[in-house]
Amino acid sequence: MTEATAAKIISLLAERGETFAVAESLTGGLIGATVTGVAGSSAAFVGGVISYATDLKARLLGVPEDLLAAEGAVHPDVAAAMATGVREVTGATWAVAVTGVAGPEPQDGKPVGTVFCGVSGPGGSLKVVDLRLTGDRHSIRIHTCEMALDLLLGVLLTNSGEHSG
Amino acid sequence: MTEATAAKIISLLAERGETFAVAESLTGGLIGATVTGVAGSSAAFVGGVISYATDLKARLLGVPEDLLAAEGAVHPDVAAAMATGVREVTGATWAVAVTGVAGPEPQDGKPVGTVFCGVSGPGGSLKVVDLRLTGDRHSIRIHTCEMALDLLLGVLLTNSGEHSG
Repeated sequence: MTEATAAKIISLLAERGETFAVAESLTGGLIGATVTGVAGSSAAFVGGVISYATDLKARLLGVPEDLLAAEGAVHPDVAAAMATGVREVTGATWAVAVTGVAGPEPQDGKPVGTVFCGVSGPGGSLKVVDLRLTGDRHSIRIHTCEMALDLLLGVLLTNSGEHSG
Repeated sequence: MTEATAAKIISLLAERGETFAVAESLTGGLIGATVTGVAGSSAAFVGGVISYATDLKARLLGVPEDLLAAEGAVHPDVAAAMATGVREVTGATWAVAVTGVAGPEPQDGKPVGTVFCGVSGPGGSLKVVDLRLTGDRHSIRIHTCEMALDLLLGVLLTNSGEHSG
């Protein structure tokens, strides 16, 4: 199902001549791996950043260090800044970013299953959702990947592209 | 088996107080996803770059544009430059990078299954191997991931760490 969503995103964006990128924390590359499992993904997917360590979110994606210091890495504003940042550094039309706690231990005072997902698009458009997931590390990562792709597809379907009025 | 290799890399590096990063082309995040499937991976894994599109290899990892123009993205020198580049941008002690053709179509004149893997370490140490893989897109990506982690582990086991003489 996740690969089917990825395939829809790719064909939709390729048709529009647009691209997308990912910034992954708790998933560690799983979203990119899922997307590139689809043959022909290079028509719309450019790549992205695996910002697993907190300092890479600042270093590679420009997430403000004071935000990370004040709120930790698992926060809606961090997801938003990761999405905006990876869109900027890759030059992609769209970007999706995830940060959260896969477990088994809580992180930065946030319980296991706390996940934030951000989508950044043309003209500074931004959507962030707060996911509360249950299950073990494996299922939290899989569900985060599914929900991130679902969120991106949903945003794309309600937005007719960067050249729309 | 691949997760077991990842777990060995993590415990070995955590013991040494060292870290590693990845730069992924054809695997698109699969190596990072495999590594972060191991609970406690943050003790040694910092993240990295998914440089799926050729221009991201230059843009995010500093792979020379003239090299990419002359040789294409699937070349041992590109794997070496990706490994060196991601080690630099992340500040990790070690880095492993892969570039190649997962298929179904040939790329830059290279046949499906052509894969190059580079490992970069302290003091500019560098190892690049040429893999000729068979199978479909899925199995080429899985085997690339396995072999990249095997290569990194092999290099780590023959190198006693950045503080060695």
